[in-house]
Amino acid sequence: MITPGSSDAIRVAVSAVIFSLRSGANGDRLMLPLVRRTRDPYLDAWALPGGWLDPAEDLDAAASRTLAETTALTPSYLEQLYTFGDVDRSPTRVVSIIYWALLRSDLVDAQRSAAGAPENVEWFDVDDLPPLAFDHRRIAEYALWRLRNKVGYSWIGAGLLPDEFTLTELREVYETVLGRRLDPSNFRRLLEGSDELVPTESFRTGKHRPARLFRLAEKA
Amino acid sequence: MITPGSSDAIRVAVSAVIFSLRSGANGDRLMLPLVRRTRDPYLDAWALPGGWLDPAEDLDAAASRTLAETTALTPSYLEQLYTFGDVDRSPTRVVSIIYWALLRSDLVDAQRSAAGAPENVEWFDVDDLPPLAFDHRRIAEYALWRLRNKVGYSWIGAGLLPDEFTLTELREVYETVLGRRLDPSNFRRLLEGSDELVPTESFRTGKHRPARLFRLAEKA
Repeated sequence: MITPGSSDAIRVAVSAVIFSLRSGANGDRLMLPLVRRTRDPYLDAWALPGGWLDPAEDLDAAASRTLAETTALTPSYLEQLYTFGDVDRSPTRVVSIIYWALLRSDLVDAQRSAAGAPENVEWFDVDDLPPLAFDHRRIAEYALWRLRNKVGYSWIGAGLLPDEFTLTELREVYETVLGRRLDPSNFRRLLEGSDELVPTESFRTGKHRPARLFRLAEKA
Repeated sequence: MITPGSSDAIRVAVSAVIFSLRSGANGDRLMLPLVRRTRDPYLDAWALPGGWLDPAEDLDAAASRTLAETTALTPSYLEQLYTFGDVDRSPTRVVSIIYWALLRSDLVDAQRSAAGAPENVEWFDVDDLPPLAFDHRRIAEYALWRLRNKVGYSWIGAGLLPDEFTLTELREVYETVLGRRLDPSNFRRLLEGSDELVPTESFRTGKHRPARLFRLAEKA
């Protein structure tokens, strides 16, 4: 039987995996921000943004606070993903509650320039991550797997776009997240069969023929 | 900035929501086991089975151990569900990592009689729970919501049945979990379109015409 006191040797941290689309040489890429560690263990290694849970704050609040402190980012949507707590994941016993979020690419730069971009934060392609501290590579890969699963049966990928978007823009997001081409007419059929995406009266005009803009339906 | 030391005031617990089908006056009901507390806070109130995380054990191991210690149950499948950590959920600061499981009804009685059923454990209908300690009602309701969602797009409900089952038995499980009738021919069509359920060469015989037995496909 474990007595209550023996749990005191366990510390609780909160970290976040934030996905966004960032423009690169070969078009948009799915990327996430990492923070370079400034102390041991894993001094100078890259790690997920996060920090210690404050005894006086709720888990969601801790996820938002530590994310803002380390990256100056404020995602509109932050969801608890999973809690990692293997005995050997850190030199001391740390249970890490992991959150994940999608951040609209147009907001990333605005937030970073408003807050002054922290110097030790960089964005990395999810398929080309550097060596990570602790078990953070496993955590990042798990979050990516969950994201790819979730876009398979939901329109959550729209969270990476501004409020209004064309069918083509949405399909390209799904292709970037999933890492494969999707059939445009199948995609259009799926979308038209959904009541989660709502057509607006606006159109995107440009060199192609005008394309109707859609938005996510309001949550009930 | 929160210093590492301040997280020492937070304790980590692990609890489980275990669902099984139990026979009642009106047929099978979806039920879960609760443990009557033997100390403050909430002395004598019902609570989810669980206990403190041991600094030397992984989260999954803690979930299995505390479940076995409190209920003598050993589910074949135990999955982390969510971590609850609101500041005011307990008189002291406790972060609870919640697991959930399905337990085949034919195994419940076997395990309990083998181990000697603990006296302070009782099974309750998920739709008729007693007052629960802490935020355990909210946790139980969240687990039930997740279960009902998950059976909506998977064959996970088969985990409540013995290894082999008829289509009718499986449909009745889904009806019990979802709390509504399902159309038999639609259900059969869904099932026949799935490669997760495999027909066997065996049949259930009895007063009705023989019904083929199915089993879940082996995981790759």
